[in-house]
Amino acid sequence: MSFDRLIARIVELKNPTVVGLDPKLDYLPDHIIQDAFSRYGVTLEGAAQAFLTFNKGIIDAICDIVPAVKPQCAFYEALGWQGMRALAETIAYAKEKGMFVITDGKRNDIGSTMEAYALAHLGKVKVQDQAFTPFGGDALTVNGYLGTDGIAPLVKVCKENDAGVFVLVKTSNPSSGELQDRLIDGQSVYSVMGQMCEQWGADNIGRYGYSAVGAVVGATYPQQLSQMRKEMPHTFILVPGYGAQGGGALDVVGAFDERGLGAIVNSSRAVLTAWKKQNLPGEDYAKGARAEAIRMREDITSYLPEIKL
Amino acid sequence: MSFDRLIARIVELKNPTVVGLDPKLDYLPDHIIQDAFSRYGVTLEGAAQAFLTFNKGIIDAICDIVPAVKPQCAFYEALGWQGMRALAETIAYAKEKGMFVITDGKRNDIGSTMEAYALAHLGKVKVQDQAFTPFGGDALTVNGYLGTDGIAPLVKVCKENDAGVFVLVKTSNPSSGELQDRLIDGQSVYSVMGQMCEQWGADNIGRYGYSAVGAVVGATYPQQLSQMRKEMPHTFILVPGYGAQGGGALDVVGAFDERGLGAIVNSSRAVLTAWKKQNLPGEDYAKGARAEAIRMREDITSYLPEIKL
Repeated sequence: MSFDRLIARIVELKNPTVVGLDPKLDYLPDHIIQDAFSRYGVTLEGAAQAFLTFNKGIIDAICDIVPAVKPQCAFYEALGWQGMRALAETIAYAKEKGMFVITDGKRNDIGSTMEAYALAHLGKVKVQDQAFTPFGGDALTVNGYLGTDGIAPLVKVCKENDAGVFVLVKTSNPSSGELQDRLIDGQSVYSVMGQMCEQWGADNIGRYGYSAVGAVVGATYPQQLSQMRKEMPHTFILVPGYGAQGGGALDVVGAFDERGLGAIVNSSRAVLTAWKKQNLPGEDYAKGARAEAIRMREDITSYLPEIKL
Repeated sequence: MSFDRLIARIVELKNPTVVGLDPKLDYLPDHIIQDAFSRYGVTLEGAAQAFLTFNKGIIDAICDIVPAVKPQCAFYEALGWQGMRALAETIAYAKEKGMFVITDGKRNDIGSTMEAYALAHLGKVKVQDQAFTPFGGDALTVNGYLGTDGIAPLVKVCKENDAGVFVLVKTSNPSSGELQDRLIDGQSVYSVMGQMCEQWGADNIGRYGYSAVGAVVGATYPQQLSQMRKEMPHTFILVPGYGAQGGGALDVVGAFDERGLGAIVNSSRAVLTAWKKQNLPGEDYAKGARAEAIRMREDITSYLPEIKL
């Protein structure tokens, strides 16, 4: 019932947004890159340390106004195990600062293999009598193509660790419809997946009416967002695609319920690179991120009812 | 056109099988665990080092008779970045020994994010003017739920790095049919996904008639294996589910073409834990794995035509 914690924080900050921590060297100010390279070399380790320093600055700048961050695994994995260490350290830092962490890994497998992913990202792993927290996120994005065998192990780990998952339902990309919009007995594949999310979460519904099994539905498909809000009344929605991918504040309104809850909207690039757009010096990149995070909050909440329980 | 390399090695060894490197501490002989713990502590690092030592023994024992290994990312990720380092070192060791490495990550995303996964696992990543190989596999399993936006970046990286991908089509688990067997215009979802594999691979067909875009179809569904062999004439098939999951040699025959090519059959647990089943002392675990790998090869090839180009 992990989304209870997320929802409580959204209400406290009156802010249903999440900042995606998707670092690329291009996004980082020179002084961070040069400092990391001078200490760790022009290496995967140097780049990973630059990511970590950059992320900490972003987290410091937004943790009192934004409830959650969403690190994208791919950008850390691209730096090898050194990048995965920076991912773990980023997550630990964000949690220390009171943020809810959604690890964007889109992981999927079955049985004990899926359980290994779940324990890696949401739980603890035992080595003999010792327990370790490999990555330590609060929620994980996952892919439901394999059916219940891929989700049941997650649900179990979520219960034991007060964690949640977001299953891909209707993704934000242009080609998402190639499979997801096709019709099964008159219903789209994404709609069928949404119904499975409702079933998977049915045993584990939190105090605010949402289960531990959430869904991903893109801001770039506003009609489908409204449709899925109705078809999945107990499913919390993670909404990517706002900002850089083309979704606007009006596009995401349909994801929310009448309390202004039920969804959280992600922005990554626009926040991380705000300092460039605002023509700020690199030293002020975190200030730029904060300004953009506030702008996004105002933009989205201006179309919502007052957020309350 | 990476599957050309895999196919050539399959023909050379007359062995269309792959050994899954899915280590769990339960599978490992005591001497390896105790040695790793005494040097690195009862820690994630200690467990990761035990996995690496175990894997090297398996690879040494099979590299002259088995063409490929398939490490399952989840079990390494469960040991945090320390586990991911053991994954990278396992892959490097297998390649050193001439083996083809299929990294089983079932990764999926879109655009530059998917490209990051592709470069991480199949290519090189640039840090300023330096190029690094984060994980260095020859092929990667991926999930096609997001459509072409998730596969096109892979195809590009595969071309540049002589690598391949295997897209999940019909998975081996009992609940795979919940979505994959549903009908779209009279065709199953897995069949639709299979047709997409044919399209995604069409521009990049190798000398033996198979593209760089392969498919995963489980041994536990023999009818669907035969069906997909026919429906995907240019798509190389990775077949999980033989052995521990219940698939037998007769079940996988339909995955192959008339040359005894077109597929590779995976076994993980039965090979890694063969020493226990054979009542061998822990010191002989690699000997047990070799014996089981030979048994598997004989079992499967006994139902196939002579493997040749």
